[in-house]
Amino acid sequence: MAKDEKKLVEEITSMSEDFAQWYTDIVKKAKLVDYSGIRGCMVIQPYGYAIWENIQKELDRRFKETGHENVYMPMFIPESLLQKEKDHVEGFSPEVAWVTHGGAEKLEERLCVRPTSETLFCDHYANIIHSYRDLPKLYNQWCNVVRWEKTTRPFLRTMEFLWQEGHTAHATAEEAEAETLRMLNVYADFCEQELAIPVVKGRKTDKEKFAGAKATYTIESLMHDGKALQSGTSHNFGDGFAQAFGIQYTGEDNELHYVHQTSWGMTTRLIGAIIMVHGDDAGLKLPPRIAPVQAVIIPIAQHKEGVLEKAEELRDRLSQKFRIKLDSSDKSPGWKFSEYEMKGVPVRIEIGPKDIENNQAVLVSRTTREKVFVSLDNLEEEVGKLLDKIQQEMLDAALKNREEKTSVALSYDEFKEIVETKGGFVKAMWCGNEECEIRIKEDTSATSRCMPFEQEQLSDKCVCCGKPAKKMVYWGKAY
Amino acid sequence: MAKDEKKLVEEITSMSEDFAQWYTDIVKKAKLVDYSGIRGCMVIQPYGYAIWENIQKELDRRFKETGHENVYMPMFIPESLLQKEKDHVEGFSPEVAWVTHGGAEKLEERLCVRPTSETLFCDHYANIIHSYRDLPKLYNQWCNVVRWEKTTRPFLRTMEFLWQEGHTAHATAEEAEAETLRMLNVYADFCEQELAIPVVKGRKTDKEKFAGAKATYTIESLMHDGKALQSGTSHNFGDGFAQAFGIQYTGEDNELHYVHQTSWGMTTRLIGAIIMVHGDDAGLKLPPRIAPVQAVIIPIAQHKEGVLEKAEELRDRLSQKFRIKLDSSDKSPGWKFSEYEMKGVPVRIEIGPKDIENNQAVLVSRTTREKVFVSLDNLEEEVGKLLDKIQQEMLDAALKNREEKTSVALSYDEFKEIVETKGGFVKAMWCGNEECEIRIKEDTSATSRCMPFEQEQLSDKCVCCGKPAKKMVYWGKAY
Repeated sequence: MAKDEKKLVEEITSMSEDFAQWYTDIVKKAKLVDYSGIRGCMVIQPYGYAIWENIQKELDRRFKETGHENVYMPMFIPESLLQKEKDHVEGFSPEVAWVTHGGAEKLEERLCVRPTSETLFCDHYANIIHSYRDLPKLYNQWCNVVRWEKTTRPFLRTMEFLWQEGHTAHATAEEAEAETLRMLNVYADFCEQELAIPVVKGRKTDKEKFAGAKATYTIESLMHDGKALQSGTSHNFGDGFAQAFGIQYTGEDNELHYVHQTSWGMTTRLIGAIIMVHGDDAGLKLPPRIAPVQAVIIPIAQHKEGVLEKAEELRDRLSQKFRIKLDSSDKSPGWKFSEYEMKGVPVRIEIGPKDIENNQAVLVSRTTREKVFVSLDNLEEEVGKLLDKIQQEMLDAALKNREEKTSVALSYDEFKEIVETKGGFVKAMWCGNEECEIRIKEDTSATSRCMPFEQEQLSDKCVCCGKPAKKMVYWGKAY
Repeated sequence: MAKDEKKLVEEITSMSEDFAQWYTDIVKKAKLVDYSGIRGCMVIQPYGYAIWENIQKELDRRFKETGHENVYMPMFIPESLLQKEKDHVEGFSPEVAWVTHGGAEKLEERLCVRPTSETLFCDHYANIIHSYRDLPKLYNQWCNVVRWEKTTRPFLRTMEFLWQEGHTAHATAEEAEAETLRMLNVYADFCEQELAIPVVKGRKTDKEKFAGAKATYTIESLMHDGKALQSGTSHNFGDGFAQAFGIQYTGEDNELHYVHQTSWGMTTRLIGAIIMVHGDDAGLKLPPRIAPVQAVIIPIAQHKEGVLEKAEELRDRLSQKFRIKLDSSDKSPGWKFSEYEMKGVPVRIEIGPKDIENNQAVLVSRTTREKVFVSLDNLEEEVGKLLDKIQQEMLDAALKNREEKTSVALSYDEFKEIVETKGGFVKAMWCGNEECEIRIKEDTSATSRCMPFEQEQLSDKCVCCGKPAKKMVYWGKAY
């Protein structure tokens, strides 16, 4: 097995050497994804899909707790329906897949495969919303969507991806704005609590907002290589879609009013964020709360009498409370150590003849690699405490990394130098004009990530043009 | 409210008058589905989708208990991939949707929207299966599929539908056959235990089997109108796909072998089965185990002091154990009674001032409409017992209905008369020749539903041609 062990470790490129290759290696070696024969589409393998299932479960619970109901809309959008809202169709039509034939027959009207479902929800809402009593409508759907991307990378940018899209309709503008912010906070809380990923909450500039939205709010996270990742967005549409689709209700005042709408989404790209925020040169590092396997039991000298039986007993005991795997395959313990480290399993439990004699097991943490001996009598408690500790350590480390990689730029030269050399988030003042955003992007490839809710007055002048500043903006290169 | 109440009841066509209209009325009035602007595609509304979520949860649990893992395959299949297995492409290509353009660009190769994913799983399996150590592969996926149907009906036959498709690969033919039958049994058990739908298990004739399969097994259920519904299928592919896609492994004997494969699926059409097996003229009747609302609390004289508070207290108590809804809207109790009866909620709980005085509530069963007074002290226990009783009553009633509508035909005249007048399942002997199946279909519209595992020797002769009989077959008109 010695050869295999070496091979396993060697095959993951080091982060500092080539971050993109490191990412690809992890995705493949940890068996999250296999490439498919269809350009830009991925096969999500069991280990990758189990992460998604845990994400779904936790997000869905939060959606239901906030009163949302799940529905399912058709995956096809007739061309005429897509065109009803002008900004929306301009934003999306360059990147949709078109169905033109059903069986041998040519369709009278082309259907696009949904890139997002605003138009379908609007069409449905126009059917079912009549009175103020029908409001609010708080719907969500879990589905696949397709965007015809030129260059793709597993999880981060794929032609087809999985997501949830919430779509709500409200009686007033105030309620829609409150919902938009409420769901952004649900997303931020989810990222920090479950994924151990700290995020910056803010509003997108007009240039970066969603096609058809009045306002787009975003949570932005920072990857290990200093690039930003938009991790979730929440849009306030005002009554723009309602006017385009004729979604009106009779109010308590007996007058007709347009509804005010929101939408918000999170996708499988979150798995990319988990990899790039937490991973290291040994491989993946999964936050305990969403890890498919929270602890792996590895028997030592498993051929010796009683070892496998004890390992199985521990598995059965611990499985009552945690997601546990026992690896009793004929590979060496050393190989297994590397394998599950690479797969990011938070806790390793070793149990061998000596441990059994001493009524103990060895717990090894994926974050600190610290080994501790614990009594078998309170194993559940110790494993639970260690998982909580790891979850917190991962959040702390991610926060520390983000802080180290967040800079302030007061001049444009400083700005350019930071983006080029250090990367990360750059906080800088902005005049509010799109020209400066465009110039910054051309000069540095950095884009405005968001105007954070927590504003600071770094200076009076736009970092780019020197004119009076209106907002502090987080800038950065992004995935 | 009196007018509304009348309207609600009037709007459901009676079953005996027009079964198809009765079905459509329920689907619409119970808000399971809304029609969409896309031919043959449905909007699954919250109440319908919640049923599907409960189906998913229970099936998924069974799949995981039997060692299956969830994955996600691309939704597109390149034309050349679809064509790799000859029988399969012939079966499916007349009914697929073709994507020909991505954005403004014409594709070099057309992509079909998956009608089923055998070809994608095979492509992936050829990548990842190398050694006997890689077997078995027990994968499942939850997704949407598209089949370009000419005529469609909500849940029963739709262009797009939701389903799960299990795809497994095994070292030997025996293991594949065992898996095919194991999953058929999982399906049958699920239908009987969760949906209260009894099924006939058997094998499809060659004419009715899946495109590319060596053997297709099926569970067939009987609707209230005497038509059959294929409710789940499990296919043994032998090594046919493996040969077409080159899925080989090195055995313990160091030789190359082809894998043996299975696939099995259940779809949103199960919701159609629930409606048509259990419903009555008052509306839907949902089996407690998958009902989104197991009991609805309806306050009586809710304006009186303490009533609403007590109703809320009961909701909070019961929600610990059951799926509970409290309707405290300003509609009349009578309107609410009809509404939740129509929506098929198994148990209604009435609570009014007098009940509170007597420390009791009224429980009303959707099946028997029997009213019982129960003490509030052991409400959880009483509701639980009543839900179990209803679940059993529904299964018993469905079984009784199926038995009453199952006939034996010994002559072809008798066969034709039964199909024409009584409908239901007809058990009759068959020579094994496709000509007789075709003739029977032409003469009566009935098709062979399955060759049941429980064979009976009704006679020596084929009911159609009189030649020596090989098998007893269940025949019937089907959805």
